[in-house]
Amino acid sequence: MEKINRNERIALLMKCLTDSPGEIMNLGSFSEILSSAKSTISEDIDIVKNLLAKLDIGSIETIPGAQGGVRFVPGFSKEKSISILQKLCDKLSDSQRILPGGYLYMLDIIYDPKLVRDIASIFAGHFFHKGIDYVVTVETKGIPLAFAVAECLNIPLVIVRHNSEATDGPSVNTKYISGSAKKIQTMILSLRSLKRNSKVLFIDDFMKGGGTAKGIIELTKEFDCEVAGIGVLIETAKPSKKLIDKYISLLSLNVVDDNEKIIDIKPSVLYRANITQR
Amino acid sequence: MEKINRNERIALLMKCLTDSPGEIMNLGSFSEILSSAKSTISEDIDIVKNLLAKLDIGSIETIPGAQGGVRFVPGFSKEKSISILQKLCDKLSDSQRILPGGYLYMLDIIYDPKLVRDIASIFAGHFFHKGIDYVVTVETKGIPLAFAVAECLNIPLVIVRHNSEATDGPSVNTKYISGSAKKIQTMILSLRSLKRNSKVLFIDDFMKGGGTAKGIIELTKEFDCEVAGIGVLIETAKPSKKLIDKYISLLSLNVVDDNEKIIDIKPSVLYRANITQR
Repeated sequence: MEKINRNERIALLMKCLTDSPGEIMNLGSFSEILSSAKSTISEDIDIVKNLLAKLDIGSIETIPGAQGGVRFVPGFSKEKSISILQKLCDKLSDSQRILPGGYLYMLDIIYDPKLVRDIASIFAGHFFHKGIDYVVTVETKGIPLAFAVAECLNIPLVIVRHNSEATDGPSVNTKYISGSAKKIQTMILSLRSLKRNSKVLFIDDFMKGGGTAKGIIELTKEFDCEVAGIGVLIETAKPSKKLIDKYISLLSLNVVDDNEKIIDIKPSVLYRANITQR
Repeated sequence: MEKINRNERIALLMKCLTDSPGEIMNLGSFSEILSSAKSTISEDIDIVKNLLAKLDIGSIETIPGAQGGVRFVPGFSKEKSISILQKLCDKLSDSQRILPGGYLYMLDIIYDPKLVRDIASIFAGHFFHKGIDYVVTVETKGIPLAFAVAECLNIPLVIVRHNSEATDGPSVNTKYISGSAKKIQTMILSLRSLKRNSKVLFIDDFMKGGGTAKGIIELTKEFDCEVAGIGVLIETAKPSKKLIDKYISLLSLNVVDDNEKIIDIKPSVLYRANITQR
């Protein structure tokens, strides 16, 4: 690349680093590409670091050693996360969202790229240092969120399906019981999709009883893999005892009252601001 | 925000603009947020503009008038697109990908965030100026790509399903015939998901006969909406006559020969480099 000046270098470093979260970038190779001394690149990176902190959109980590370098770690401060989640609760509390049967309409939210990106960054901040190899989800509604989390963690997405297709190749087929509806369902995952001994992160949009998450734990065992994290956007307050015990949720849905037209949803305990007891 | 210097300003402008493709950003508001003169901001944006051109990752458009400003338009040059697609063909031509029945395994590619992001940018460059309101896809395999395209165009994603769920609310249910398998299938779309008189872009991972795309055209008519674009990652060379006529594909799959272990796939006519007749 032709020689570029400091302004351009910093903008380029900002873009390279934030576009590839978790990827360790070597100062030496930056210095070659940008035809600048390592010490200069190091100063430039400090500027990017400070700017990220000012904007509250993640941080730069330095990895020492021969294989070392710098990498971008996505995530927001707790304050920013709380502010995002409270705004989301306000949106979700609109009584127009109540559907026949007391369900909550939220497709517009879980398919909205900007909102999904923010939610994914919150999850990414949580799970970044857990050594996750894959993000796993079950079709369909959680896919955009799971994909965005996979992108923030810079790892592949794996989608578990309910029906098998010829294009999946040989697959593992398991049954699970949905925690709330007590219905037997099928989970199918292509044999090629997970490497043995991997750590997976299960991401979903909604958790009621926890049956799906439990099914995923069982399914991944068949691949000699381990569920190293579970993250759901919304969990229902009831039943309070889920079929699994280790998970994080961002929002907690207490009630959708079709008669009174009231939706009671708030950030989960992890993300409740102490100052705002709502 | 506290006063920041030129280096930081440029990195911040780069990030703001590229994170929100298509969003018209007013120079006046930048100048307020960054406590700098409009003329300074204008110079800064020129630097970002030149850098984007050097990196070949999109461009900055200036919109004149009172409501005007600048916006980021995603997309690559034709050369870069061809290079991305040819690399993709090389990956897809690996005979290990041949599945029983002569199918091609490609889940790892269509669920890989980095590859999907690149493919989405190619589509975004194509459809950016078509005034699209929604990206539509049918579950499941095309969802990550469709979501990434929606993000590049900064518009909502809509997912058509095969089964209805209580959380969708009232929905429109149509039947369509898959072009290749001649099987009757169901398409379901929540009534709340599309505003009347919108323009939609249909994105999918694979097209054989074109039946699904035709089904989407029919379904969107029920919402008084128009399919203003169709983009598929891979189309099969046969049948050459599809059920629909206006679409773009990025790759063309000629044959998967299970006996000879040969996969013949290449960039579509639109993206074939004249110099490399492969």
